[in-house]
Amino acid sequence: MMILSRLLGCQEQLGFLHQSKEELTDSHPVVCNRNILVELEEGVGVAVMKMKSPPVNSLSLDFLTEFSISLEKLENDRGCRGVILTSAVPKIFSAGLDIKEMCGKSAEHYAEFWRAVQEMWLKLYKSNMVTIAAINGNCPAGGCLMAVSCDYRIMAENPKYSIGLNETQLGIVAPFWFKDTIANTIGHRATERSLQLGLLYSASDALKIGIVDELVPEEKVLNAAAATMSQWLAIPDYARQISKSMMRKPTLDRLLTHRESDIQNFVSFVTKDSIQKSLQTYMESLKQRKG
Amino acid sequence: MMILSRLLGCQEQLGFLHQSKEELTDSHPVVCNRNILVELEEGVGVAVMKMKSPPVNSLSLDFLTEFSISLEKLENDRGCRGVILTSAVPKIFSAGLDIKEMCGKSAEHYAEFWRAVQEMWLKLYKSNMVTIAAINGNCPAGGCLMAVSCDYRIMAENPKYSIGLNETQLGIVAPFWFKDTIANTIGHRATERSLQLGLLYSASDALKIGIVDELVPEEKVLNAAAATMSQWLAIPDYARQISKSMMRKPTLDRLLTHRESDIQNFVSFVTKDSIQKSLQTYMESLKQRKG
Amino acid sequence: MMILSRLLGCQEQLGFLHQSKEELTDSHPVVCNRNILVELEEGVGVAVMKMKSPPVNSLSLDFLTEFSISLEKLENDRGCRGVILTSAVPKIFSAGLDIKEMCGKSAEHYAEFWRAVQEMWLKLYKSNMVTIAAINGNCPAGGCLMAVSCDYRIMAENPKYSIGLNETQLGIVAPFWFKDTIANTIGHRATERSLQLGLLYSASDALKIGIVDELVPEEKVLNAAAATMSQWLAIPDYARQISKSMMRKPTLDRLLTHRESDIQNFVSFVTKDSIQKSLQTYMESLKQRKG
Repeated sequence: MMILSRLLGCQEQLGFLHQSKEELTDSHPVVCNRNILVELEEGVGVAVMKMKSPPVNSLSLDFLTEFSISLEKLENDRGCRGVILTSAVPKIFSAGLDIKEMCGKSAEHYAEFWRAVQEMWLKLYKSNMVTIAAINGNCPAGGCLMAVSCDYRIMAENPKYSIGLNETQLGIVAPFWFKDTIANTIGHRATERSLQLGLLYSASDALKIGIVDELVPEEKVLNAAAATMSQWLAIPDYARQISKSMMRKPTLDRLLTHRESDIQNFVSFVTKDSIQKSLQTYMESLKQRKG
Repeated sequence: MMILSRLLGCQEQLGFLHQSKEELTDSHPVVCNRNILVELEEGVGVAVMKMKSPPVNSLSLDFLTEFSISLEKLENDRGCRGVILTSAVPKIFSAGLDIKEMCGKSAEHYAEFWRAVQEMWLKLYKSNMVTIAAINGNCPAGGCLMAVSCDYRIMAENPKYSIGLNETQLGIVAPFWFKDTIANTIGHRATERSLQLGLLYSASDALKIGIVDELVPEEKVLNAAAATMSQWLAIPDYARQISKSMMRKPTLDRLLTHRESDIQNFVSFVTKDSIQKSLQTYMESLKQRKG
Repeated sequence: MMILSRLLGCQEQLGFLHQSKEELTDSHPVVCNRNILVELEEGVGVAVMKMKSPPVNSLSLDFLTEFSISLEKLENDRGCRGVILTSAVPKIFSAGLDIKEMCGKSAEHYAEFWRAVQEMWLKLYKSNMVTIAAINGNCPAGGCLMAVSCDYRIMAENPKYSIGLNETQLGIVAPFWFKDTIANTIGHRATERSLQLGLLYSASDALKIGIVDELVPEEKVLNAAAATMSQWLAIPDYARQISKSMMRKPTLDRLLTHRESDIQNFVSFVTKDSIQKSLQTYMESLKQRKG
């Protein structure tokens, strides 16, 4: 557990360092980027990725790019066999896609942004590493997608936190691969109802319906994730990876096959006047809520 | 709830009116056909379709044709966003396909009948409106298909009512799109067992296995449906409709692709001497039960 | 229940008889082969297949061949409508594939062995008969595959018995059709976790997750299977068989389409030096455990 206590300690000191790699000690290399803090404990072979992009870990183009690069580095690191994904921002895991990337920008920008969203998911869903989401805050929309793309989900049993694909509540639509990922987790019927209503589940409802696998008190989320990780790492990597791939490949292939048309769909959707208008309204309401 | 109390009141007075459209008041147009009473409350945008073809709301060719026409009219009515499907006949939602349409008729008739069964399902399963089944009576076979084709199911918690695809108990077989629809609702395993045994579930078992979403006292079924409807209508139509279509299109496409062969299968099955004989025997037993 | 008590009585006397068919009495023909005892009670139309290949009913080439032949004989016997699959060896249903068939043999042998594994599954999963697994002992790996390929599973509620596809724990991988079969039983998510971790479920966990359908005290497993069998046999065969085929054909077709490449995959996997080495080590550990 040393890695966890150290991370909790170092995070404020590190602040928003921009270097791509920094070694605090010989045994605990820490990578601190703008949006995500990555610490790999080499002896154990487990990295913790802490999203730290206040106020709500929005998935901006910048964030997504950094996420994909960080994950790819770990993927190629033979010393890393598992990743715990969590948040360094209190009360929020991730609020999902950054609406600022979808408003008042060019079609080219929207396309680039959407490709980055796809890339994040492709990398996470097909990761050969064991991936565990330590959900220590609210987890709507794209945040929920990240969580259900992991191998296992542990959520803080805080009644204020919820998780779900709530896109329709904002008048937008989760793309087919969000749908596939959640359907692989909770089944067809629960997905149909969940997506149509844009349901956000309380932690206890999320456990009942199977969006998360386990609830623990908030302060124990990281410890529980580490404990679960060691169970998963007890399985020979090769056999586990083939089994995982067998389950996920058809879903991954569906996006790979339709990747360009999916981008086009997004661009033509988001450039609609009506959608721009409602996203603008929504952004204004968010600003006023803060103010 | 005004629409509900008014419907309960007007239904006997209207009787079996044959006109295709009749306005009782400016705000509450009511369509009363032979088999189905349709009332649309325009302010709310919700229609109630009450099946009223005693004794058991059998899905005859006549009934099915009227059902598809009524639903299409509502579909094309911009004032209608949701439909509650229920029964005006006590103790029965619908007994399913009318066996009289499958006995002693010509191959042409069987083909026409089956196409009408398909059409009813295609229209209901792909409806852009919110569809809620208010199951206030027994709901076997084709009645169950109608219910599971809706977006949400509320059933009266009356221990005498049951629901399920019980075809095999009569020696017949639910077609593949019945199977797909129920599997989308309760999953592969429960479907396999359910279809092979022709299981009819009590209301409480139906809730456990997920064939229905909610149980309420019998007198509250319509009120509960109206309450649920308003939750669903709180979601922007466009986003909800795309989400629904994303979930259901593959299942719909499967029948559209195999529609003609499915008709041929039905005709060649039902024209078998052995099947005709057992359907005749079954019809006789039904007559004697009544007498 | 006469068939069951008689079988329990005759099994020791019969021992390892090699004749292909022996009639104990006019009404109870018993087939005693090397590995499997088959008794068909003709009046009822139910056969009991008792695996009796100590110490652990390993699925050797010999065992699998006999299994497929025995099942095919029953399939072609119009007097047999249902099969109860159980074990005559205390404390074990079946330990799964015989590792001896995968060690130190020729590529030709591995191919022949794997084809026999496929054949066993194809015959069992597509059987027109009602198939019920009476799981009266441990049921890992290939034993679990046999069980989940039946129509219904009753397990002894003995806390020492477990069931599951634990292949990854041995560093090997369940092939795609094992995966399909278990996913058809417990759904995508439970399968993903189950396969990656090689989970073995206690009887009570197996019931919760749906790998088995029912738990009964150990001494009542066969009686419960016979009682369930009579419920299933109350359904007309023809309708039940079409319903079963409708559910299982796509899964069966997937292996039939990829049968040769699946064999090649297995052979090239099992002939790897690293795999041979770990299988040898595992075999040694098994021997030492006994000694």
